[in-house]
Amino acid sequence: MRYLLQVDFPHSGPFGEELTNAMNDLAKDIATESGLISKLWTENEATKEAGGIYQFTNMDDAQRYLKKHTERLTSFGYKNIRGKIFTINEALSALSVPQK
Amino acid sequence: MRYLLQVDFPHSGPFGEELTNAMNDLAKDIATESGLISKLWTENEATKEAGGIYQFTNMDDAQRYLKKHTERLTSFGYKNIRGKIFTINEALSALSVPQK
Repeated sequence: MRYLLQVDFPHSGPFGEELTNAMNDLAKDIATESGLISKLWTENEATKEAGGIYQFTNMDDAQRYLKKHTERLTSFGYKNIRGKIFTINEALSALSVPQK
Repeated sequence: MRYLLQVDFPHSGPFGEELTNAMNDLAKDIATESGLISKLWTENEATKEAGGIYQFTNMDDAQRYLKKHTERLTSFGYKNIRGKIFTINEALSALSVPQK
């Protein structure tokens, strides 16, 4: 079973290439997290928000990482950090794959 | 550029295989949405929430689908539907892929 962690928070910038440059080392470090399958880095300059969509192999790592990452974001000065963990319904997700 | 749509809402059930059976036809219909790359169906029986993580090829289809899906969920009786659209930072997401 895959576990999905959804995180988002208000973010005033940087965005795009500037965000890439600022978060380059953190992105590489996150790749080493136990249980991580993938992270999609998300951002919206219009609504001034950013976040991440993670997949983990197990709930314990998803919960451990959410605590660690929330503490890190708080230390960076972020507030109103929303984190939610779900399981992925694999059968329904497979049915929603577009046919090419 | 890929666009990520994140939707979640309070959901009292069904979950798991019962949800799969109830939403089978809708999942197939969603596969035909213009611009859709993928949908991950998300659910959490403990927190009584469900949702979806979508990728779209373009912003217009992401916005169009969010409006359509929010109206559909509302017609099903769901309330407090949260929908957020982001762009995916591809460079950072590539750096966060675990090395096997």
